Amino acid sequence: MSTKQGKQTYTNDRKVYIRETAAIVGPREKEGPLGEYFDEVQNEDFDEKSWERAEAKFTSATFHKLMGKIELKSEDIDCILAGDLMNQCMSSSIGLRDSGVPYLGLFGACSTIAEGMVTGSLLINSGGMDNVVCMASSNFCSAEKTFRMPVEQGGQRPPTAQWTVSGAAGLLLSSNPGGPLITSVTVGKITDFNITDANNMGAAMAPAAADTIIAHLTDLGLAPDYYDAIITGDLGLTGSGVLREIMDLHGFNLYDEKKECFKHQDCGAMIFDPIKQKTHSGGSGCGCIASVFASYFYKQLLYGNLKRILVVGTGALMSPISVKQSESISGIAHAVAIEAQ
Amino acid sequence: MSTKQGKQTYTNDRKVYIRETAAIVGPREKEGPLGEYFDEVQNEDFDEKSWERAEAKFTSATFHKLMGKIELKSEDIDCILAGDLMNQCMSSSIGLRDSGVPYLGLFGACSTIAEGMVTGSLLINSGGMDNVVCMASSNFCSAEKTFRMPVEQGGQRPPTAQWTVSGAAGLLLSSNPGGPLITSVTVGKITDFNITDANNMGAAMAPAAADTIIAHLTDLGLAPDYYDAIITGDLGLTGSGVLREIMDLHGFNLYDEKKECFKHQDCGAMIFDPIKQKTHSGGSGCGCIASVFASYFYKQLLYGNLKRILVVGTGALMSPISVKQSESISGIAHAVAIEAQ
Repeated sequence: MSTKQGKQTYTNDRKVYIRETAAIVGPREKEGPLGEYFDEVQNEDFDEKSWERAEAKFTSATFHKLMGKIELKSEDIDCILAGDLMNQCMSSSIGLRDSGVPYLGLFGACSTIAEGMVTGSLLINSGGMDNVVCMASSNFCSAEKTFRMPVEQGGQRPPTAQWTVSGAAGLLLSSNPGGPLITSVTVGKITDFNITDANNMGAAMAPAAADTIIAHLTDLGLAPDYYDAIITGDLGLTGSGVLREIMDLHGFNLYDEKKECFKHQDCGAMIFDPIKQKTHSGGSGCGCIASVFASYFYKQLLYGNLKRILVVGTGALMSPISVKQSESISGIAHAVAIEAQ
Repeated sequence: MSTKQGKQTYTNDRKVYIRETAAIVGPREKEGPLGEYFDEVQNEDFDEKSWERAEAKFTSATFHKLMGKIELKSEDIDCILAGDLMNQCMSSSIGLRDSGVPYLGLFGACSTIAEGMVTGSLLINSGGMDNVVCMASSNFCSAEKTFRMPVEQGGQRPPTAQWTVSGAAGLLLSSNPGGPLITSVTVGKITDFNITDANNMGAAMAPAAADTIIAHLTDLGLAPDYYDAIITGDLGLTGSGVLREIMDLHGFNLYDEKKECFKHQDCGAMIFDPIKQKTHSGGSGCGCIASVFASYFYKQLLYGNLKRILVVGTGALMSPISVKQSESISGIAHAVAIEAQ
């Protein structure tokens, strides 16, 4: 059973563990500062003839990698919760169509893996499910093709632009002990601050991240200090600055005076080296926070370097058509509180 | 709490009621055989300047219509589960961005409203949520533009083609008594039988519908006779024939000998008059089963004309790009067992 706390947050009375994770990324991600933490590297095209098939192969290979790490068979998995950024979420449905596992498709843009953890831990708390796999993927080339311009065109990108991560990640949530514990989750609301620049998604998502983090802390009566780290993905460098400023304005300081650094970290800002790799504002895409959480942060929890973290997946709700029609880009963020065991 | 039965089915130990529904449809749906049951009719463009904005307005107007029928305020709704067929599910996120309600985006193609009922009733069974709104929408013109050809071109359609329904529907699931009861839900698997014809989605979805119905009946040890009606959406006329044949081959006869008619009914086959309205194989789109269930079948349950039904939402997992790349069209179906009170 879960218990509602305040307005948007649920504490898990039935324990939900993140038993295992897997992440496969592309070469740019492997060359980045977190390269050593990923399970596997594959070319962006993953030896497939289209970017769409390549992204789907990232998804299927990551699912098999995850299943290979655990003692469960596919019939022991109650449900997969998955989504991606391609039109009609095709990477997930093509990548997982041979899994033989009951499937619930999600759409949360880059918040997908957090939406999966929120939903999955509540499904396990409903009592009937014991093992739920959450997955998310993105691919630089399939995303550029879908949302921006042909890669071959080599168009110039403004400094606020983010680079879509090529990668997929999977998490096994389980009621059986092992791995860090998901203690509470916060379901986010759609926010809209009239951002219309698809090359500045960080600014569109930062208010949603702030809204959800503040809701989470308020619902549970906590200060940011309660967590060793508040991790967003993927605001990038631009959006991270906006988030810290908004939080400050609302009286929640994300700067850790003792450690002289920000308690807030962003997966998009961490996955690439912006100077060496020329990745402007940082990484983005469903695969970014998914792969960084599944590899780097998951290991920090396992090694005891981090005890309590809040993982906040942020999504920019936009389509190529909505941008061309000058619709504003709404944001959404879901939060998951995780404790090392 | 929910209890797992067999492999894919969950019975609700905590009662989940469908407290209220709302459906707004377009003129073609209003002129069809079920026209009298819908709450409201609006032009396909809903006085908006783009088809995308029109579909989003169907969503927002339906949400407000639903909220206007119930005594709850938006802050009493724990969560909205919604999705649609537009790229990146923009109808739902634009249509609901001002709702102020925590939001989880789904992608299940035409199975979306069933996926919402499955997920929503399990979320309520997790104990923390009491009121969940499920929504789905589609629009003939936005779907044609996305998936097929410009409407103005007037291209000829094969007889297996389906007409996307213009409409949106919303359901309030609640732990507070009132309205029919969701007794159990079955989470479907992705099936793929190598169908590549986007004008024959019924054939792509029928195996998924059969797979989920058989799983549901097997998990609960039931025969089709247990239900007064087994309702799919949206297989259309072609897909309905395929489903009945597959079920027969597996020893599940969907023909009711006593009433001399099929126990199986399909929302896509029912919403239009195929001869008068020239709608070929019938209706489709997330809004089809959503609006037909929310209006016609919901009222049949309220009036006591139907006591026990199984609602099976079927989705064709495809995108314009996947079809052009000759990917097969996978299918998925989720089932919801509902009893009149």
